[in-house]
Amino acid sequence: MSNQNSNLSSDAASNRRMIILTDGHSNPVTAKTACSLLRYRQSEVKAILDRNAAGSTAGQLLGVGDRIPVVANLDDVADAKTLVIGIAPPGGKIPEHWRTIVLDALSRGMNVISGLHEFLAEDSEFAAAATKSGAMIQDVRHNSEKDVANREGIRPDCLRILTVGQDCCVGKMVVAIELSRALQRQDQTTKFVATGQTGILIEGDGCPIDCVVSDFISGAVEKLVLKNQQHDILFIEGQGSLAHPRYSAVTLGLLHGCLPHGMILCYEAGRTAVHGMPKIGLSSLTELSAAYQTMANLMGPSKIIGVAMNGRLLTDSQASQERERVRNELGLPTCDVIRDGPGELVTAVETLRNELAARGEQSC
Amino acid sequence: MSNQNSNLSSDAASNRRMIILTDGHSNPVTAKTACSLLRYRQSEVKAILDRNAAGSTAGQLLGVGDRIPVVANLDDVADAKTLVIGIAPPGGKIPEHWRTIVLDALSRGMNVISGLHEFLAEDSEFAAAATKSGAMIQDVRHNSEKDVANREGIRPDCLRILTVGQDCCVGKMVVAIELSRALQRQDQTTKFVATGQTGILIEGDGCPIDCVVSDFISGAVEKLVLKNQQHDILFIEGQGSLAHPRYSAVTLGLLHGCLPHGMILCYEAGRTAVHGMPKIGLSSLTELSAAYQTMANLMGPSKIIGVAMNGRLLTDSQASQERERVRNELGLPTCDVIRDGPGELVTAVETLRNELAARGEQSC
Repeated sequence: MSNQNSNLSSDAASNRRMIILTDGHSNPVTAKTACSLLRYRQSEVKAILDRNAAGSTAGQLLGVGDRIPVVANLDDVADAKTLVIGIAPPGGKIPEHWRTIVLDALSRGMNVISGLHEFLAEDSEFAAAATKSGAMIQDVRHNSEKDVANREGIRPDCLRILTVGQDCCVGKMVVAIELSRALQRQDQTTKFVATGQTGILIEGDGCPIDCVVSDFISGAVEKLVLKNQQHDILFIEGQGSLAHPRYSAVTLGLLHGCLPHGMILCYEAGRTAVHGMPKIGLSSLTELSAAYQTMANLMGPSKIIGVAMNGRLLTDSQASQERERVRNELGLPTCDVIRDGPGELVTAVETLRNELAARGEQSC
Repeated sequence: MSNQNSNLSSDAASNRRMIILTDGHSNPVTAKTACSLLRYRQSEVKAILDRNAAGSTAGQLLGVGDRIPVVANLDDVADAKTLVIGIAPPGGKIPEHWRTIVLDALSRGMNVISGLHEFLAEDSEFAAAATKSGAMIQDVRHNSEKDVANREGIRPDCLRILTVGQDCCVGKMVVAIELSRALQRQDQTTKFVATGQTGILIEGDGCPIDCVVSDFISGAVEKLVLKNQQHDILFIEGQGSLAHPRYSAVTLGLLHGCLPHGMILCYEAGRTAVHGMPKIGLSSLTELSAAYQTMANLMGPSKIIGVAMNGRLLTDSQASQERERVRNELGLPTCDVIRDGPGELVTAVETLRNELAARGEQSC
């Protein structure tokens, strides 16, 4: 067993032949790790494990993943090599009834990948099972970041775009990936900079910033920028929200660590309360837009350049109305990158780049 | 050796008979742990260890601590029981040439207290020396905080005042302590809530929030509030600054974890650049005041109620002019709690409490 993240890139390039564990938690918000791997690494996913839904498909259960089967047992998949913890619960602890499944996998010699805050490799029972079988435990959030930000060596002609949110779990990672891929199709060199466990599993590198010691979060983000700024554009995965009662520190450390030229405000239409905290209402998009700009501008010129609406709960007609409402309310390009495609936000990124170039602030 | 913080209170009540190590770093900003222990725990301090200044006094060397001697060797103090790392360098690493001094202390059986990010108890050479002699290593920043904030059970009739800053190392801890003590003298039950290593060494409890994993910083602060809200007023020690390139995440996690009714903006007169980052200018007090209020009000009503000026670099006449200038610029009560006494800010706290009581928002 080990906790080495250095091989993520080569792992990602190979086929991890994954069973994704969402047992009893198979909804698209809690099981967002599962959904995102189904969306962006589908060829590596052999099955979803949820005993309550065995026999159905990932598409039926989670709305993504097409005909990937849902199974009840590890035995139901002949050639699986890896068990992935497919959920991201608040606080990051493993559900108690999952222990036997994880132990079973490790005992069979399957590697286990987890993005939980509770490190599986530090659990003596899991560690012993892994050592015995030769399986590897990969705690994606494990890190030893201990460098502060220095604000030195940042390339002005690499455009930095950060996705920011009204709340956590609204699709900031998806927006960053979709924009990065769209600009790549236009022959730009872009990089999706992963800052969370799911993004890291998809991209093969990154930093799990919400698990970095607070004093070093901006330093860890700055290192991601320095490492990747050979690209024309970085699309940096946002985390949490400046108005999130639990995670606003993570959001600000990320914002001040990456110094974005532009931000894209992401939200889920229809959500009224903070995810996981039903008594606490969300701040309005207008209020949040101002807060992000205020905080970003303490460090340098930056602005919200567009809104990414997650319309998964809406019908097409509702989505169309909502998009128009928000576009008018904020006076910004607005689209649902999944339903509408990212075109309107791609144009917003190009417009920003042209503005900066015209002012000589960014030379691309 | 160990890393148990649970006995800090009883330690604080006893006499730790401390030698404070500032060797080669004896300036009031870097050696702020030393200065604050000299100010608030002087009866426990036997000597300062700085080989370059041996023979002088703490008062001469650091401007605080009166006739406490500065020595060159541990041998120069007969009955010392504890060596304290007296500095707080960016990144929190021990200066390399201090290793022999720390090893010497541990080998003699002296306990070593450190507030560095680099945990001394995890250094195999230090740990071995401590184990051999029976000495204890106390890494004040060591913690295992893993709870998110929940926003439940917070008492509305306990007034929460947070000191916030234009920068780090401007005196936020001193202001919180002085205000807490001043209100105690008026028969209020108050508590200084320590959030940094020096405050914890002075108060005997608290949480080293800059060393908490980012996802849990607001949760750790919320627990401090819940634990201490039997008091009339909490004076919560601020950290960093919302505009600090390195530590703004810590500042926001603290702000959103303690939900202050009022904030006191602290700054050092004459400072123009970020501490330790001479190329980065400070945001203005007006800009920062607005930023703090914007971020606090995302969670609930809160405002800046006064300004604490640290005028240590000024003459009396300069200080008087500067105080008047800031009072006019921000339209807020302003004083240097050391030079002028905290009276004007005490009145500001009482005024806030009366305002809240009149509106029925806070029932004291």
